[in-house]
Amino acid sequence: MAEEDNYVDKTYDKDSLAQKYNIIKDNRYVMEDAIMPISRALKLPIDEVVGIFASHYDGTSLYEIHAYVEQAKMGCLGRKVDIDLGLCWLSDFLGIISKNDADLIRKKVVEDTLINKVDYEKALDKGRKLTIALMKD
Amino acid sequence: MAEEDNYVDKTYDKDSLAQKYNIIKDNRYVMEDAIMPISRALKLPIDEVVGIFASHYDGTSLYEIHAYVEQAKMGCLGRKVDIDLGLCWLSDFLGIISKNDADLIRKKVVEDTLINKVDYEKALDKGRKLTIALMKD
Repeated sequence: MAEEDNYVDKTYDKDSLAQKYNIIKDNRYVMEDAIMPISRALKLPIDEVVGIFASHYDGTSLYEIHAYVEQAKMGCLGRKVDIDLGLCWLSDFLGIISKNDADLIRKKVVEDTLINKVDYEKALDKGRKLTIALMKD
Repeated sequence: MAEEDNYVDKTYDKDSLAQKYNIIKDNRYVMEDAIMPISRALKLPIDEVVGIFASHYDGTSLYEIHAYVEQAKMGCLGRKVDIDLGLCWLSDFLGIISKNDADLIRKKVVEDTLINKVDYEKALDKGRKLTIALMKD
């Protein structure tokens, strides 16, 4: 009987994992905006990343990934801008650009990219010009 | 007389700026570890970045740049690791990697690069393997 329970549990786990796997695979938003960038960053096959997500999240929280991904897109892109424009250096450590100005530049590039759908390199270039203008101010 | 004062002030400013410019130019450490990366990030000629530094810092704080640069190198490289390995996503927003584990990975890559003088891409690759191992844990 105990063995049978164990068999049922294992089958349920397997089905549940496969089910979660499919839920993620079917969510184009999560695939494009989370699974794929993580797969690129870690040089890990997409299927493996989906598998890790499926193991990590339970059924309910799986439907909340969408919200986490939205926040991550904004937050992590802002940090990328900090690196790409040297704002981390100029503002946080060298004090050549004020924290407020750095916030403004970062926000502008993130908004242009995510909301106005401007190509990231173009948005970055606008941010670069703004940074230089503020540095010379 | 007021005009003469003005002339003296202006000459002094000019000399002082030129002096500060030379102090920065002569500091190989500040040139290589701050001026050059900022020049690359902003696509701005090196001389212009030196000029901005010279205008920003007064004579005394100029000699403290070294300390700020040391902190910036560690801090900003850590943030670059966060982006390059997707730790910003995995740890801060998706909770797939714990904050402690992310700190460990980041620290390892920064130490390997700055202290053990491992090539950044190689250090990053080691960090990538560690990240994947911890994700599958």
